Amino acid sequence: MKKLYQPVTAAVLNELVALVGAENLSTSETDRGQRAFDVSSHAPHLSEVVVWPQTAAQIAAVLKYANEQLIPVTAWGAGTSVEGNPIPLFGGILLSTEKMPHTIQIHADDLQVTVEAGKKYKDLNQELEPLGLFFPPDPGGDATIGGMLANNAAGPKAVKYGACKDNVLRCQVALADGRLIQVGSRSIKQSSGYDLLHLFVGSEGTLGVITEATLKLLPLPKFASAVVASFDSVDAAVQAVVKIKSSGLDPAALEFIDAQTIDLINQVGGLSLDQNHTLFMEFHATHEATLQLGLEKVKGICTDLGAQTFTATTDPAERKQLWFGRHHAYDYAQQWYADKKLLTLDAAIPISHYPEIVTQIEQGLVKHQVSGHMLGHAGDGNMHVLLPYDDSNYDRAVAFHRELIERALELGGTATGEHGVGIGKIGYMRQEHGPALDVMRSIKETLDPNYILNPGKIFP
Amino acid sequence: MKKLYQPVTAAVLNELVALVGAENLSTSETDRGQRAFDVSSHAPHLSEVVVWPQTAAQIAAVLKYANEQLIPVTAWGAGTSVEGNPIPLFGGILLSTEKMPHTIQIHADDLQVTVEAGKKYKDLNQELEPLGLFFPPDPGGDATIGGMLANNAAGPKAVKYGACKDNVLRCQVALADGRLIQVGSRSIKQSSGYDLLHLFVGSEGTLGVITEATLKLLPLPKFASAVVASFDSVDAAVQAVVKIKSSGLDPAALEFIDAQTIDLINQVGGLSLDQNHTLFMEFHATHEATLQLGLEKVKGICTDLGAQTFTATTDPAERKQLWFGRHHAYDYAQQWYADKKLLTLDAAIPISHYPEIVTQIEQGLVKHQVSGHMLGHAGDGNMHVLLPYDDSNYDRAVAFHRELIERALELGGTATGEHGVGIGKIGYMRQEHGPALDVMRSIKETLDPNYILNPGKIFP
Repeated sequence: MKKLYQPVTAAVLNELVALVGAENLSTSETDRGQRAFDVSSHAPHLSEVVVWPQTAAQIAAVLKYANEQLIPVTAWGAGTSVEGNPIPLFGGILLSTEKMPHTIQIHADDLQVTVEAGKKYKDLNQELEPLGLFFPPDPGGDATIGGMLANNAAGPKAVKYGACKDNVLRCQVALADGRLIQVGSRSIKQSSGYDLLHLFVGSEGTLGVITEATLKLLPLPKFASAVVASFDSVDAAVQAVVKIKSSGLDPAALEFIDAQTIDLINQVGGLSLDQNHTLFMEFHATHEATLQLGLEKVKGICTDLGAQTFTATTDPAERKQLWFGRHHAYDYAQQWYADKKLLTLDAAIPISHYPEIVTQIEQGLVKHQVSGHMLGHAGDGNMHVLLPYDDSNYDRAVAFHRELIERALELGGTATGEHGVGIGKIGYMRQEHGPALDVMRSIKETLDPNYILNPGKIFP
Repeated sequence: MKKLYQPVTAAVLNELVALVGAENLSTSETDRGQRAFDVSSHAPHLSEVVVWPQTAAQIAAVLKYANEQLIPVTAWGAGTSVEGNPIPLFGGILLSTEKMPHTIQIHADDLQVTVEAGKKYKDLNQELEPLGLFFPPDPGGDATIGGMLANNAAGPKAVKYGACKDNVLRCQVALADGRLIQVGSRSIKQSSGYDLLHLFVGSEGTLGVITEATLKLLPLPKFASAVVASFDSVDAAVQAVVKIKSSGLDPAALEFIDAQTIDLINQVGGLSLDQNHTLFMEFHATHEATLQLGLEKVKGICTDLGAQTFTATTDPAERKQLWFGRHHAYDYAQQWYADKKLLTLDAAIPISHYPEIVTQIEQGLVKHQVSGHMLGHAGDGNMHVLLPYDDSNYDRAVAFHRELIERALELGGTATGEHGVGIGKIGYMRQEHGPALDVMRSIKETLDPNYILNPGKIFP
């Protein structure tokens, strides 16, 4: 990797001002400091200058210039990522899409929308609601579409609707050398040439910068139910997950939280959830009859497996209440462990191995003498464990974390289901991808030979 | 493009025999002749030798050797493609996967199966049926999984279940230099590094050869209906398509056939379909109630738009009968025009433009004085027009075809929805992809610098 990066001098700043305008550039410590970290515990790092381009052409021009000058460029959405993905490790230019939050066009009949990269997905869904449409991926936080696509973000509803890569049709991308290209197509079917769209989606800003995207939309579900079921054994809860998945029930969310975490939620949130291993579920349907038939089936599966409690509702207010604890679980954990940092496992595995990984987690926590909270997107095999740590137990938390990821890889899984590689998962890239990692690097060097784009990420 | 390919000499044959065994190699004109063409009208071309590796390691070894010797290698599945995709234009080695038809493992709980590249999808679905599972893409013919993935094939059910790229999780791929890599993951969620899986899927054997794949499966639909509705105006039929799509009904197939083609089907097949513009539909559901509610809604939409006939059934035998004409339409057209060749349009566009493209087709056929048969996968905006031609009208058929593709591209569509580029769509690559085509070529040159893999395809 080339690291002979050049500093952002006064001459560079002058040139950047010429490209984006003085009002769209800042070297203030405040502006740089606010964009030096994400929500992870990875150490912050300051960029040398923040620029806020307002058009794709400006983004391309900044990249072209930075590439000529060998200045690193790290793209920035909202800083809500959790693996240090947008931390400007080598300084240089922090290229923020904050001034590109616009909806370019809603294609309602096509169930599509075209937006600028800086659009926040929550704002987008508010705009779409009156049209009866929505964009399914919901990673949480106040993430931008550009950041979500760059990280292939997902969230609880991915079990039914897929991750970002499943919900995007085309992007405009600025390359390191300043070329602006279109990848993918507004046609939902395309078999013309190489799928560059999915090469850029998930590449974490290391191959190019996504400037705009056409997203797939869906009609808002006409009917929805929320279900909470609790079990006094982890095994029963996890068996229920596997059965629900293979039954064809197609849950819109299927989350697992262990009893210890339920206890934390109850204490911090003042709730009174049954203190047991718990599944939070959501189902969507276009007909109420379907929803009811599905609920009967889910109840049957949970009852057969000895569920301690089973609560289901289709009432919107009650649905929200039922999921309240799950929605706030991460915040509550942060509050509870305010004096510690959180290391987050993001392994994902084929669903049939979910019981095994849960057992492994239980044993590993005992073995390494660390506490951990399981908050899994169980329906798609994605398991988060929140590991509170400080200096006293850091090594043990890391050892547990590594052991779990290695087991997930042995089981045909991945070190990162939805958070991306960023800084935190670089160490697992060779083990997960073998010689395919060299192919990734060849492509990187083809498209960004000077390594100006988000250096220090993805590659060991 | 390097074209200084070397011939397959006696020495080369000896080396290939050492790699795959004498029983897995043939230079006979019969064996080469049977693998010199696909089902399109593109001119056949003979390879110099056919090899039938029996393992991924043998495929990799053949590629490594061919790359060192600068001998072209064209991968071959079943020859059922329709753009000349596997025709060995530069001779060399035809690498057939015919002796790799095995199912490696069925992961029933994960709704996955791992197969060798030479597995035929119809055989796979027969194996899966007793388990209540199926692999959705159904391009027709006797296609292999390797060929289907290489071309990102689709078929009528793609409207609900997606194309091949949406139904594959991981592949093993042999690269031109003999490296064997794994791309993707058995975990249904993965955000680790670049998405190489989707780079190889759809690359038509020009970046590597897929040796095995893990596919996503689905539970066989519990309930299914078939619907046929006819309309006396094209416009009404096409409006119905757009309405059904945006209603959230999620059809499993939504096909459009124009009145003239219905006439052909009736005459060749001895059927008595209402001679009007016709929609063939299929719906899948896990509950019968859902199916019935959906059928009422579809009937409402069709009736409101003045449908001349509307027939629906959930009986399996009747369903088959109702779709009989659609299933045999292509064969009937080939019979009817036995003395001509068929040029096939495969454009796809955003669904809101479907009425416009149909009008354009009607006008274009008149303008260019050619006859053409519309057989569209209307539900996903994919339109096939079969254009019978001989020397007398070849230029006019081509002019019509080009005009339609150019219009599809203007409307944000693609020159090829599901057939791939092969030979036939090369001429549209620059127009469809602009500077992104140069990025495709850079990637090609990174992974296959000697252009030994399926030369003469995709790139102008």
